[in-house]
Amino acid sequence: MTQNLIKTVFRKEILALSAYKVAEAKNLIKLDAMENPYTWPEQVKEDWLQLIKECPINRYPDPEAKALLATLRQTNKISAQSGVLLGNGSDEIIQLLLMAVPEQSCVLAPSPSFVMYQQVALSLGLNYQSTPLLADSFELDLPAMLKTIEQTKPALIFLAYPNNPTGNLFSAEAIMSIIEHAPGLVIVDEAYAPFANASFIETLTDKPNLLVMRTVSKLGLAGLRQLNKIRLPYNINSLTQVTAEFALKNQALFDQQTQQICLDRAIVLAQLNQLPHLTAYQSAANFILFRAGKNQAARVFEALKAQGILIKNMSPQGGILTDCLRVTIGQPEENKAFIEALTSIMESL
Amino acid sequence: MTQNLIKTVFRKEILALSAYKVAEAKNLIKLDAMENPYTWPEQVKEDWLQLIKECPINRYPDPEAKALLATLRQTNKISAQSGVLLGNGSDEIIQLLLMAVPEQSCVLAPSPSFVMYQQVALSLGLNYQSTPLLADSFELDLPAMLKTIEQTKPALIFLAYPNNPTGNLFSAEAIMSIIEHAPGLVIVDEAYAPFANASFIETLTDKPNLLVMRTVSKLGLAGLRQLNKIRLPYNINSLTQVTAEFALKNQALFDQQTQQICLDRAIVLAQLNQLPHLTAYQSAANFILFRAGKNQAARVFEALKAQGILIKNMSPQGGILTDCLRVTIGQPEENKAFIEALTSIMESL
Repeated sequence: MTQNLIKTVFRKEILALSAYKVAEAKNLIKLDAMENPYTWPEQVKEDWLQLIKECPINRYPDPEAKALLATLRQTNKISAQSGVLLGNGSDEIIQLLLMAVPEQSCVLAPSPSFVMYQQVALSLGLNYQSTPLLADSFELDLPAMLKTIEQTKPALIFLAYPNNPTGNLFSAEAIMSIIEHAPGLVIVDEAYAPFANASFIETLTDKPNLLVMRTVSKLGLAGLRQLNKIRLPYNINSLTQVTAEFALKNQALFDQQTQQICLDRAIVLAQLNQLPHLTAYQSAANFILFRAGKNQAARVFEALKAQGILIKNMSPQGGILTDCLRVTIGQPEENKAFIEALTSIMESL
Repeated sequence: MTQNLIKTVFRKEILALSAYKVAEAKNLIKLDAMENPYTWPEQVKEDWLQLIKECPINRYPDPEAKALLATLRQTNKISAQSGVLLGNGSDEIIQLLLMAVPEQSCVLAPSPSFVMYQQVALSLGLNYQSTPLLADSFELDLPAMLKTIEQTKPALIFLAYPNNPTGNLFSAEAIMSIIEHAPGLVIVDEAYAPFANASFIETLTDKPNLLVMRTVSKLGLAGLRQLNKIRLPYNINSLTQVTAEFALKNQALFDQQTQQICLDRAIVLAQLNQLPHLTAYQSAANFILFRAGKNQAARVFEALKAQGILIKNMSPQGGILTDCLRVTIGQPEENKAFIEALTSIMESL
């Protein structure tokens, strides 16, 4: 495809984008991507493989994913009046929502927040607006948000709860106020909710313009059937349906893993704050944001990588993330290796 | 979500759409959806399950699907200068392409053809144009296509090869002429190519505006990296990557199944044409389009369903599909059950 042809055919916004980059992590302790560090016990795996084996992979999947939906409604206590929309990860739901609004629409999110809101909005030629978080607390700047809502009338507002990459829970009152003042939809993205004791799921029945996103399940109200029209009919393949349903039915196992991660988060937070020249922030998610000394973030990141530990350097994003890094909570021995490496690095800086 | 809110937030085109419907097929012989009627032998399944078992499902998948891509390039003989873009089925690639063009863009396809081109284009507010196929041969109306290209300057042209639902291969010369006259991209959709002895893959290196879509693999030229920017980074999950790669490496098994289906297609075609009041058309795909007597299609469809056989009634789409039905080639005993049921139905009509 020639450069000329590309310019003729595709939106000009796409030409200016850079694709979402994922770091190469071979042979590294991977604490960069908010993954669950735990796998399944052998017997759970065997039960799951048995289901996979019985899966008719030569057939199209159930386009409505009925079995998975029923399990999801039950385990997440979703009221019958709420609609549910399934995607391959939150990313697909974000894309679907942004595809559904007219091209001149405004989309609003605080800054910093999950990068895909902006990435997908810009690729679709939408008008993306962001309001900076308060620098001291990473809290929503409510007056500024309400003013931007008034001025730009956003069709969609994205609020990550807890927020990524800052890890904090925004004030629930501020979120309620935004929901009440929004002329369009407010999407509360609860990708990290299992690690927080907070959720807007119970608010769904009261607020017609609220949509709650979860990582196995995306929940909302009856109007979501409009979006089901543009969801691709076979978007969730058979293996994924069977696996998600199985995982939901083994909730106790995930709860255990989540509890362990929350315990280890408290330990890592305390250890980070004992190190000189570092400030680590409270987190309600499975990662911790911390601030290094002025202009030290890249050096800390590279030195950790040289010692075999991959975290995420947030400093290039600028603004209140300048000098910040983000570490995902791993297994205890991975966290220990991270803290030991970081300790020796901080001593040598 | 209130009706008012829906009208405010979403594109008006979405409100007018109906979602893609999939027929309920419980306890029916399923010959409606062009599925492969064959599963894998026990030993192949065991080998596959071993790979699934080793799959680190607590980690994000490889966003570039490197192992799968390498296998794909090898098995499909894709030259190094051609780019490859992976989607969850052709549907996702169709959506990605249509998302990538500006809102006022024109999209062209012959009619009838695969319904998702129109469905997704309309949901994105694009200007969808179609040119009817010739009624006698289902061949492209080349002069009409070229005239529409001249007038509407389509950013994207979709050509299914073989075509769905008619089953025929369009003239390769006509397709080349369209590629040469198109101001934008021409997507040759080879979803059913394994059942035909024809492909445009070797033309890729000569034509910078050609993109070939396949059902495990979507192939094109280097400019496709532009589209990779808007592809969601984790769109192909780990299980899917492992399974697709495994399937490609067991190509001989699929080739065997494909040969069997092509043999059975010839048998079903001959049997259909022996029945009174029916005309069945030559097919280069794994399905056959056939025409019933005037206004008989719905009766034939319902009578077959009552006898436990689900095919697809194409007559509601109108135009040259009026009175037509489409049957997918199944296993020999399924085809036999279909022909026997149809024979008795035709006798009683």
